Formats: sequence, C-alpha cells, structure tokens
Amino acid sequence: MSRTLPDLSLYLVLGAADTGKRPFEEVVLAAIEGGVTMVQLRDKQATTRVLLEHALRLKALLEPRGVPLIVNDRIDVALAAGAAGVHLGQDDMPPALARRLVGADMLIGLSVSDRVEADTADPETVDYIGIGSVFPTGTKADAGTAIGPAFAAELRQLVDLPSVAIGGLNASNAGQLRGSGIEGLAVVSAICAAADPAQAARELRQTYFG
Amino acid sequence: MSRTLPDLSLYLVLGAADTGKRPFEEVVLAAIEGGVTMVQLRDKQATTRVLLEHALRLKALLEPRGVPLIVNDRIDVALAAGAAGVHLGQDDMPPALARRLVGADMLIGLSVSDRVEADTADPETVDYIGIGSVFPTGTKADAGTAIGPAFAAELRQLVDLPSVAIGGLNASNAGQLRGSGIEGLAVVSAICAAADPAQAARELRQTYFG
Repeated sequence: MSRTLPDLSLYLVLGAADTGKRPFEEVVLAAIEGGVTMVQLRDKQATTRVLLEHALRLKALLEPRGVPLIVNDRIDVALAAGAAGVHLGQDDMPPALARRLVGADMLIGLSVSDRVEADTADPETVDYIGIGSVFPTGTKADAGTAIGPAFAAELRQLVDLPSVAIGGLNASNAGQLRGSGIEGLAVVSAICAAADPAQAARELRQTYFG
Repeated sequence: MSRTLPDLSLYLVLGAADTGKRPFEEVVLAAIEGGVTMVQLRDKQATTRVLLEHALRLKALLEPRGVPLIVNDRIDVALAAGAAGVHLGQDDMPPALARRLVGADMLIGLSVSDRVEADTADPETVDYIGIGSVFPTGTKADAGTAIGPAFAAELRQLVDLPSVAIGGLNASNAGQLRGSGIEGLAVVSAICAAADPAQAARELRQTYFG
C-alpha cells in the first residue's frame, strides 16, 4: 500500500455549524496548536459547492502544518479538494467501491459500532476504523445508542487496524478508554464548543495519553 | 470530445419518493414505453448507500434499453454506478472541476435559470443545459421563481448547447415552448404522478413535438 498511516491520536471532526459564531479556521488553528493531528470535515447539510469551498479552505490551513484532511462520506468532494482521505459511515459508499474511486493513495476510514460492522472492515481496503458512539452524543443525529467503553475496547480487538474512539468523548470520560488499545480520540464538541480549543485539545491528550 | 450527444427529447427526472407507492422501476419502464429517452436520478434525501443502490437498479433497467442514466449532483455515485453522466445544479460541483473527476467520456448537464448562469455554460465542459424552472413546480424545494416560457426561449439562444426545459411542465403547458428551439422536455410529476406514465409520456411528446 502506498499510503502512510496517519497519526490518529487526536482527531477533530467538524462542519461549519459546529464552531458556532467563530470561523472554523480559528477553532482548527487553536486545536492544532493544542495537539490535534487529523481533521475531518463532516457536514451533511451543506450543498456540494459549499462543502467543497470549506474543504479547500481547510486544506489550505492544514497542508502547510502537515495535518491530513479527511472528508466525511463525499468521495467526490474529497477528490476535488485533493483531501488526504475519506471517512465512510455504514450508510455511505461501501469501502471496496470507494477504494476503486479514490485509488491507492487516499486514506479510507470506516465507522463501526458492532461486531458485524467490525467484521466488514477489510485491512486491504480500509486504513483505520472509528469505533462508536462510545458515549451519548448530541452532534450526530444518526449516531445510534452509545456502545460504552468496554464494548469499544472489545471491538478494537476484533479488527487488525488502527482505530479512534468517537462519540461524546471529553476530558472527563476519555480516561475510561485507557488500556483499550484504541489509538486515538475523535471529538467534535469537546473541542469545537470549548472556550479555549487549544487547552481543550491539550486536556484530552493529557487524559488519554497521560 | 469522446461522448455522444444523447437524445434529450423526453427526460424523466426522479427519486424513489417521486413514484409514491409504486416501485420506481414500474414507472420508469412504462415511461420508456411511452417515449422517455433519458433518466435522471435525483434524490437529495437518500443516504449515499441507498442512492447508489437505486442508481445500480436503474442502470440495470436502462442499459439494455439504450437509455442513458444521469445522476444529479453526486459525481461519486455516478462514477460508482457507471452512469452515463451527471447533472449539476448551481449549488453543486463547478462543471470544470466535475469534468476533471469524470473524465472525457461522461456527460455533464448544467442547470441555468438566468443570463449569468447561461454565460457560465462552457461547451468545452458541459454537454447540455437544463433551463428552468419554466413554470412553478412542487417537486424541487430550491427551484426558485418560475422564469416563464419566453425567457426560457431567450436563454436557449444564449448558449451554444442542446437543452431541455424543466419545471412544472405538463401536457397542458408544454405547447407554450414550441418554437423556443429547446430540444427536449424534462419532467418529474407529469410522468411520476400520472395514473398511466406511458400515456403521459406519449402526450408530452405529442404536445411538444406534434
């Protein structure tokens, strides 16, 4: 495989609406300062044109800082923006088909929330998995019931791929995942809604990686 | 250019919800029997996975009958399904970027509703235009104000590309476009909501092409 595995340790997921009145650039820059290693653009409401504009703005911000940009669901937008990869939910393009569209160089992430979905995560096609929702979350309407940290750890052991935990994670509960083997934390509001996104990122790292 | 210009004369646009309780295959087959020459899958609500499944089902139906399948907005789904083309609105991917993603063989249609949009329809990139909404329509939430048949005819003259009229067209009003130079009629409910879609298609052809 011609792709480099990314640093999944702190993975910020956001759409323009998640940063409220602050421009998303401001939040993203602070988050990177605080230790975010990867950014995913996720916006199911935006038109294709707006999503593409946001992807291009994020890429301009991230590329000079060596932080990969991942686009949720939209392979067309990921390709048009020259993103580092796509993240696929179970309602998105099946990973094998996605791989044919994106070629060998782009990263593919896959969300898994149960054993059946974990079984479909083929390491030949998929580069990393997102395990969740670990805790209840308000930022994803279709996130389903929270699976809890113990089951998240179990899912991690079923898949031979690096992983991030996602769903309702914050500096108070992320410690419950220590020892799970899960490689990184993915968050939306723990950083986007924080008064100080850089400090929030630092605290998340401290809680999980010590 | 390595693409063949399609027969635009009667262009059916639909998503799964547009055919109500009838399976969309039933409506599409009857519509083709009645003279539909092109089909566009347009569904802004469906998940990517469902949209792809519908695109594949439509393609299986259309391909043996020589009817091109066009996917609205979603270049990723069009590519994955092996569709004949994509149709782009003004809020979708800009056509020049879309052309880079789809290559030289896939058709690109572009919606235009005013002179500025008509000016952006570059014949090097775009294969046909959709002019509208000609009449008020209930099937497209973001369709904007109806432009009327006289202005539709004016837009047709501004662009050196084949065209379809779209928006609220039916067998009672399509005759108002005769003499406009517009090559075809695009409809949703005039066929999808008709008790007899084949007959509805025949009447549309008769009204416009005589």
